[in-house]
Amino acid sequence: MVCFADIEAAAARIAGRVHRTPVLTCATLDARAGAELYFKCENFQKVGAFKMRGATNAVFALDAASAGRGVATHSSGNHAQALALAARLRGVPAYVVMPSNAPAVKRAAVAGYGAEITVCEPTLAAREATLDEVVARTGAVFVHPYDNEHIIAGQGTAALELLTEQPDLDLVLAPVGGGGLLAGTALATRALAPAARIIAAEPVGADDACRSLAAGRIIPSENPRTVADGLLTSLGERNFPIIREHVAAIWTVAYEAIIAAMRLVWERMKIIIEPSSAVCLAAVLARPAEVAGRRVGIILSGGNVDLARLPW
Amino acid sequence: MVCFADIEAAAARIAGRVHRTPVLTCATLDARAGAELYFKCENFQKVGAFKMRGATNAVFALDAASAGRGVATHSSGNHAQALALAARLRGVPAYVVMPSNAPAVKRAAVAGYGAEITVCEPTLAAREATLDEVVARTGAVFVHPYDNEHIIAGQGTAALELLTEQPDLDLVLAPVGGGGLLAGTALATRALAPAARIIAAEPVGADDACRSLAAGRIIPSENPRTVADGLLTSLGERNFPIIREHVAAIWTVAYEAIIAAMRLVWERMKIIIEPSSAVCLAAVLARPAEVAGRRVGIILSGGNVDLARLPW
Repeated sequence: MVCFADIEAAAARIAGRVHRTPVLTCATLDARAGAELYFKCENFQKVGAFKMRGATNAVFALDAASAGRGVATHSSGNHAQALALAARLRGVPAYVVMPSNAPAVKRAAVAGYGAEITVCEPTLAAREATLDEVVARTGAVFVHPYDNEHIIAGQGTAALELLTEQPDLDLVLAPVGGGGLLAGTALATRALAPAARIIAAEPVGADDACRSLAAGRIIPSENPRTVADGLLTSLGERNFPIIREHVAAIWTVAYEAIIAAMRLVWERMKIIIEPSSAVCLAAVLARPAEVAGRRVGIILSGGNVDLARLPW
Repeated sequence: MVCFADIEAAAARIAGRVHRTPVLTCATLDARAGAELYFKCENFQKVGAFKMRGATNAVFALDAASAGRGVATHSSGNHAQALALAARLRGVPAYVVMPSNAPAVKRAAVAGYGAEITVCEPTLAAREATLDEVVARTGAVFVHPYDNEHIIAGQGTAALELLTEQPDLDLVLAPVGGGGLLAGTALATRALAPAARIIAAEPVGADDACRSLAAGRIIPSENPRTVADGLLTSLGERNFPIIREHVAAIWTVAYEAIIAAMRLVWERMKIIIEPSSAVCLAAVLARPAEVAGRRVGIILSGGNVDLARLPW
């Protein structure tokens, strides 16, 4: 299982290859929350999201022979861009399987980082079968978007940096989709701030992590509906045990609260965050009694938004 | 006339009362411009704009007896908010004359900082007459938004900070409206980077500064039309001589280029800037031969945007 030493190794491995993002504060939001909020700004990360950390760790952890054959994944989101850019940084091929209904702008971004794209039917079965073909043909290493130890360790470096800068946090929050960011955040927080509560935030329309934690087993996400399109996936096998051990609670948040929190950050902090990034702030603002007077770390996961289609 | 020593005094006076904003860079924009761009982020300043620097300097430069009677201005924009907040920081009254057609959100913001608002007819004559009445009634000190030495010196502290962090800039750009920011930027740049070219950027629909510089006298802005609503005003009497002495050129920019530059900053830097802030980047991108290989400082003046009415 992944441990804190893996996160430290990841931090050393990705140093200079990803951005060390700033930790920002905002007096207005502190007043609104009745707490001290410390925002780790992964919206400023390369490719606009924390995914660059895990992908870079996974690509640079490979031995030279494996890396030379390239890396592969199926994704229509930030992980595909991150893996493509990380592969380019190492100078090795990247193969990305994308569904035929993926937005043209996302295909262009992945192609722009030099990856070879294989288009497939927009079903999970087709994605997996196509990926298998690509891997068989190229010998590339499959890098899963979250159910992968190097990915989990890489994503944990954001919380490692946050807690190095602000060691005495009472709560640390991360959003949860597949659980790569959350598992990494949990391991880093438990090691660096043993007394801190680790909280996940999740949209009500995609609350499979909340139900999984309650049930004690992974309950798959079925027909999730949420504006936070980064948080649609089910928990991974490698992610769930870490989350179950360390995460104190999962706070669910309604659609309207997510949009209001996102707009509040745009208006008052003057930074662009995507809906998935606003889930934690929305959760904090909805629970004043739980956060009153506390020092709260929040991972802002990314800033990739279609500016022509804003949710207000 | 204002000199660099006034800017140094302003920096000492406002320290701890305004934010020391970050200087950000963006590899994508550097590649697009063919230059090294250093963005001084006044969109992160208190009240969301550089105006807080000048207003704070003006309020805290007053002797105790004058300050006790308060400060007054007529403005519907960022200066009114900045003066109101600066007065609150010193614990003295602020009086703001606003036209009856000022947006409700702006009135609410000024009132939220504790200023007393007097509404007048939306004409320049009514604004000035109403301000005179307010000053006569209260004994408050009128603080002009830009044609004021303390304001010019205060606005110059942004460039002072930028050049302290990045001393070897080849060009420094600021947008020009009334000329408070530009005059202060010019004085700071001439003192700290004597060889740097000082450039102003101005929308084509409000290019009175460009025409004034060509004519050698102030040519008032008449019926200006631009999306950059912070840049509508004519040059001030105290601002023009400084600009004429130090500013090498005024680059004008078309509407479409301003909007494209604004959107580029939102998408790639993940920060919110207002149209007036995008004018300098638009000017740089339109003149590749003039900036190729140069180190370019750009003052991003503010980030106050109505998110429900974006220009794309």
